[in-house]
Amino acid sequence: MATGKSSGGRGARFAVALDPAAAALNASSHFDNRLLNDDVRGSQAHARMLAARGLISGADADTIVAGLDRVCQEFVSGARELDPALEDIHMNVETRLIELIGEPGRRLHTARSRNDQVATDMRLYARRSALELVSEIDRSRLALYRRAREHATTLMPGYTHLQRAQVVTLGHHLMAYAEMLARDRGRLVDAERRAAESPLGSGALAGTGLPIDRAATAAALGFGAGPTHNSLDAVSDRDFAAEIAFACALACVHLSRLGEELVLWSTTEFGFVRLGEGYCSGSSLMPQKRNPDIAELLRGKPARAIGDVVALLTISKGLALAYNKDLQESQEPLYDAIDTAKLALACCPG
Amino acid sequence: MATGKSSGGRGARFAVALDPAAAALNASSHFDNRLLNDDVRGSQAHARMLAARGLISGADADTIVAGLDRVCQEFVSGARELDPALEDIHMNVETRLIELIGEPGRRLHTARSRNDQVATDMRLYARRSALELVSEIDRSRLALYRRAREHATTLMPGYTHLQRAQVVTLGHHLMAYAEMLARDRGRLVDAERRAAESPLGSGALAGTGLPIDRAATAAALGFGAGPTHNSLDAVSDRDFAAEIAFACALACVHLSRLGEELVLWSTTEFGFVRLGEGYCSGSSLMPQKRNPDIAELLRGKPARAIGDVVALLTISKGLALAYNKDLQESQEPLYDAIDTAKLALACCPG
Amino acid sequence: MATGKSSGGRGARFAVALDPAAAALNASSHFDNRLLNDDVRGSQAHARMLAARGLISGADADTIVAGLDRVCQEFVSGARELDPALEDIHMNVETRLIELIGEPGRRLHTARSRNDQVATDMRLYARRSALELVSEIDRSRLALYRRAREHATTLMPGYTHLQRAQVVTLGHHLMAYAEMLARDRGRLVDAERRAAESPLGSGALAGTGLPIDRAATAAALGFGAGPTHNSLDAVSDRDFAAEIAFACALACVHLSRLGEELVLWSTTEFGFVRLGEGYCSGSSLMPQKRNPDIAELLRGKPARAIGDVVALLTISKGLALAYNKDLQESQEPLYDAIDTAKLALACCPG
Amino acid sequence: MATGKSSGGRGARFAVALDPAAAALNASSHFDNRLLNDDVRGSQAHARMLAARGLISGADADTIVAGLDRVCQEFVSGARELDPALEDIHMNVETRLIELIGEPGRRLHTARSRNDQVATDMRLYARRSALELVSEIDRSRLALYRRAREHATTLMPGYTHLQRAQVVTLGHHLMAYAEMLARDRGRLVDAERRAAESPLGSGALAGTGLPIDRAATAAALGFGAGPTHNSLDAVSDRDFAAEIAFACALACVHLSRLGEELVLWSTTEFGFVRLGEGYCSGSSLMPQKRNPDIAELLRGKPARAIGDVVALLTISKGLALAYNKDLQESQEPLYDAIDTAKLALACCPG
Repeated sequence: MATGKSSGGRGARFAVALDPAAAALNASSHFDNRLLNDDVRGSQAHARMLAARGLISGADADTIVAGLDRVCQEFVSGARELDPALEDIHMNVETRLIELIGEPGRRLHTARSRNDQVATDMRLYARRSALELVSEIDRSRLALYRRAREHATTLMPGYTHLQRAQVVTLGHHLMAYAEMLARDRGRLVDAERRAAESPLGSGALAGTGLPIDRAATAAALGFGAGPTHNSLDAVSDRDFAAEIAFACALACVHLSRLGEELVLWSTTEFGFVRLGEGYCSGSSLMPQKRNPDIAELLRGKPARAIGDVVALLTISKGLALAYNKDLQESQEPLYDAIDTAKLALACCPG
Repeated sequence: MATGKSSGGRGARFAVALDPAAAALNASSHFDNRLLNDDVRGSQAHARMLAARGLISGADADTIVAGLDRVCQEFVSGARELDPALEDIHMNVETRLIELIGEPGRRLHTARSRNDQVATDMRLYARRSALELVSEIDRSRLALYRRAREHATTLMPGYTHLQRAQVVTLGHHLMAYAEMLARDRGRLVDAERRAAESPLGSGALAGTGLPIDRAATAAALGFGAGPTHNSLDAVSDRDFAAEIAFACALACVHLSRLGEELVLWSTTEFGFVRLGEGYCSGSSLMPQKRNPDIAELLRGKPARAIGDVVALLTISKGLALAYNKDLQESQEPLYDAIDTAKLALACCPG
Repeated sequence: MATGKSSGGRGARFAVALDPAAAALNASSHFDNRLLNDDVRGSQAHARMLAARGLISGADADTIVAGLDRVCQEFVSGARELDPALEDIHMNVETRLIELIGEPGRRLHTARSRNDQVATDMRLYARRSALELVSEIDRSRLALYRRAREHATTLMPGYTHLQRAQVVTLGHHLMAYAEMLARDRGRLVDAERRAAESPLGSGALAGTGLPIDRAATAAALGFGAGPTHNSLDAVSDRDFAAEIAFACALACVHLSRLGEELVLWSTTEFGFVRLGEGYCSGSSLMPQKRNPDIAELLRGKPARAIGDVVALLTISKGLALAYNKDLQESQEPLYDAIDTAKLALACCPG
Repeated sequence: MATGKSSGGRGARFAVALDPAAAALNASSHFDNRLLNDDVRGSQAHARMLAARGLISGADADTIVAGLDRVCQEFVSGARELDPALEDIHMNVETRLIELIGEPGRRLHTARSRNDQVATDMRLYARRSALELVSEIDRSRLALYRRAREHATTLMPGYTHLQRAQVVTLGHHLMAYAEMLARDRGRLVDAERRAAESPLGSGALAGTGLPIDRAATAAALGFGAGPTHNSLDAVSDRDFAAEIAFACALACVHLSRLGEELVLWSTTEFGFVRLGEGYCSGSSLMPQKRNPDIAELLRGKPARAIGDVVALLTISKGLALAYNKDLQESQEPLYDAIDTAKLALACCPG
């Protein structure tokens, strides 16, 4: 842990390359590239802490921080492409850093393992995404409030069992969705808060004997709840991914109800709304048609998000402590659930 | 809404009985009977509020409250069995109440619909169950702490990829599970808090014109967050069920990791533990065997709980507002997830 | 394997009873009781084979067969209740058999283990259920054909995106469902055929050294594809459960589409059908309402069946060979999926 | 249907472009590009049939067929990139075809709609993939047979409950996996056969009045079971996707069992195998380690495939006939399940 050597991907130690089929199964840089910014931020905080504790020199830390900025900029700008042979984003960043700054780049892994690094990156990404979803929800809720106020006295049939029951206002109806989104918001805020513990310093599984300052890296990275309490748990915990994906799936379920209603309301039979062409498709065969494609997609989107929740819960089932490679599989469903909820919220009509 | 008549099951209005196949699909008293206590509590609070508001007489309220106590006692004691022909627990309670106390029993449905009644009952049940799970988790965590303290210096191999990595203590290892359970606790507490809004007064979908006191029933039933804000949402919202089931599923996933470890540790090859006979089965063919059945069941239990989460999310997908009968399907997966988590937690070794 | 002793539940060997919480987790007689008939049939075939091979006497076999008939009759008639303390249906049958016929009852377990016995019972049950579902589907298809013929010239709007597209006939529309059910039928037939291999003789995991006749028991029990080929696989395979549950879930999905259409068609807005009172509920508050409860339940039922598929796939994930107790968890989701499909098919309007 | 005009994406008719958020939700060319070959094949068969029936001229058909070859070659070679603004692969192909060959390109849509076209493309892709998986399974089974023969007398402990039970041979143990794969093969073959009906000619939902020859296109495209029977069903059926995904998920479950065993066997405690470096990763911190990454990924892969099955079943739940845009969501989970099974099978050790 205390060595200045690269923590290494698999390539670091073995003479033999991965079997090609194995390499295909193992590859992750096509999805973990979205951790780039968080990986760099996490490493910069770690380097500064190492310097503050005298574990590396201040000059080394400055070189590392500047080098990481440059690596990040190269990848983001497209000046440099990720090398899939380096398997993942972490090895890509690390390898390029060492190319650029040499020996100090190797010292970055002092008192850090790939296991606590990945856990940190994923939490940073997940927390950031949860907060972005909260903003997107707030935007949607505001739009719903406005639209509801406009229709505070617009009468419409209220339904149970899709049978007309009592008269309600469209404003009241729309505010039902604002309520659902308010709960979704609450779940995301709770999940983000619960994820706000820093795994850095957990090492591969058992921490480190070096005098690191976990509180400092936690604070620098905005982990408001401080460092995680147990290193074995910290490197193998993906609860935050499952919890955020669940919140995303439920938000998609809510929007799917709105999607269904928009599909219904835009039928000839209901005839309550005429959707804008910017949300529909037509048919050359039947030029009178205006198909509510976007509302239908809103209705269909929960399916994949529910699948993501299943994947995330299933991955950790029956997994012995601590880190196991199976956990690599927890990234894609998390990203898909977040992306799906974002796409759906962006289409939420107000 | 203001009428004193029974809100009725389907039988209340139609001359024709349900087709037998339809009745089989429709029946719910074999599972919603667990709402008995909550149904009675909810109705008693409602009756007292009606009297306080002058919507029924104080004498009627007293008669209703006492009558409901008696109905409940009859069913709980087994003196009376539920009649499946009455479809659900609510009709069973109501019918028996009217048998016992006559006309005042009909007044119980003043300003209440089956839709807000069911939503209230389910929330009461779900919240209570969540808190029971919290207690069970606290008991498990305490047991883990104690055991961890005993083994604060017991050395064992720490694993990543199930390969021996660094030496840890058994105490440290056990505390990883205490951390997982602490997060599970947090999720249940959050879910319970979010569910603590009272749907009573939402009517079938559009509230009631009668001068009821929603804050009073909310307070009487311990809904700390007061009445729900939107009646259309309140009668069709089952988020609380999905959220609690998710928390249960994740807790089961955590315990399944412990289950896997106990299975591994009790193998000849690992040989770390010898499970007590009270948690094992034997084999007459191979008398040397001690099979870790309970640990295996702990490992297997998340499967059904994940299935329950899927069911709960899927039921509400694409459902137009407000109440739809599909929501009846949200009861069993909720109950199964709660039961499963309770059974698993009760077996959590400390 | 060759001993005449009971293969025993856990109680057979250990002095210590299961811990109460463990017993609650372990109990299965409340669901595996539906294997009663298949357990008895399987044991009778086994006993007759043992006699034919001279492994037990013909008189013993006769006594066992008659005794099992009596045990079965006692439980089916309700003259005797299952004892939950005996954990499962198999121990209940075996214990009662030995009470009734004494020593010969113990010889039933010659060359058989609980593992191949349970696998056989479940396959018998699953195959039988699949064929019952096929019959139910055929009934539904016939009803659809008849109704379609009646409406061979009844015009209605054909929809895409729920927008009116081209005119079709109601007969053509109904026949779309007959097509879906024909595929469901095919899947069930394929699943039944694939399940028609007999695990009997696989022993606990490694077969038996006794000169049993696996082909004979396979034939006697209608396993058309003969004995299974690999004993380790045979005792740990629950593919048939997952495959049948999947076929059930997809059938429920098809019926849910019909459910949605019936809900739509019975709205005021569409007004295409007026559902019979035998399939609806009313409302005392809104006497004009006729709520399509059964159609809504048809729409909602796939949720649980999808959950069952998830449970069944998840249980076997990452399970080392051969039998593990986790597999006990594969019974309930299978039964639930079968029951759900049966209930839904029985309500399929023709 | 009979017009020679483009069947059009949404852009064909509306003056207004999709709202940007809607366009993001709607985009599919980043995943449906894998239908390129099947789309071209399907269109070529359709064009030849139109000419044979005299619905277009032979010269037009030749021009279309050659043009489609060129379009395909341009996209495959990378000479031309897909334009995301054209939304999907079909519009990309069609637009480029018309650019290249002019008016005849527009005649390709005579008697065809996007709905039957997409259904045909997806079936072609799914069937081809199922057969590729069958080949991959056969390769794996052969490898298992060979390895099993080598180890026909290699003794090892047989396990139940992960407790040593009876001695078996490694050959026998490996053949258990060959059995599982044989069932997976059977499921894929059945699914492929069931999918071998051609939707071409179903039009948007109601067929076409033109004298097309559905049997001819079915035969040309290898749809051995001929044309589909019901047009409403044909354009809205995605059973084949769910069924193949299910078969993939179950195959992944089987391989995950092998993955778990390889993880166990390569532990210090079991010590049965030493995995080749080409399937492992190392650790610079702990140079003695050889982490079984590939076996762990095999163990983890079913999670996503189960999620895919959930998504596919959920998408069609409660969907009114006939085509709805929700069905676009059925592509990605199908592709993911197929890819996952292929990747896992390619790593299946023999």
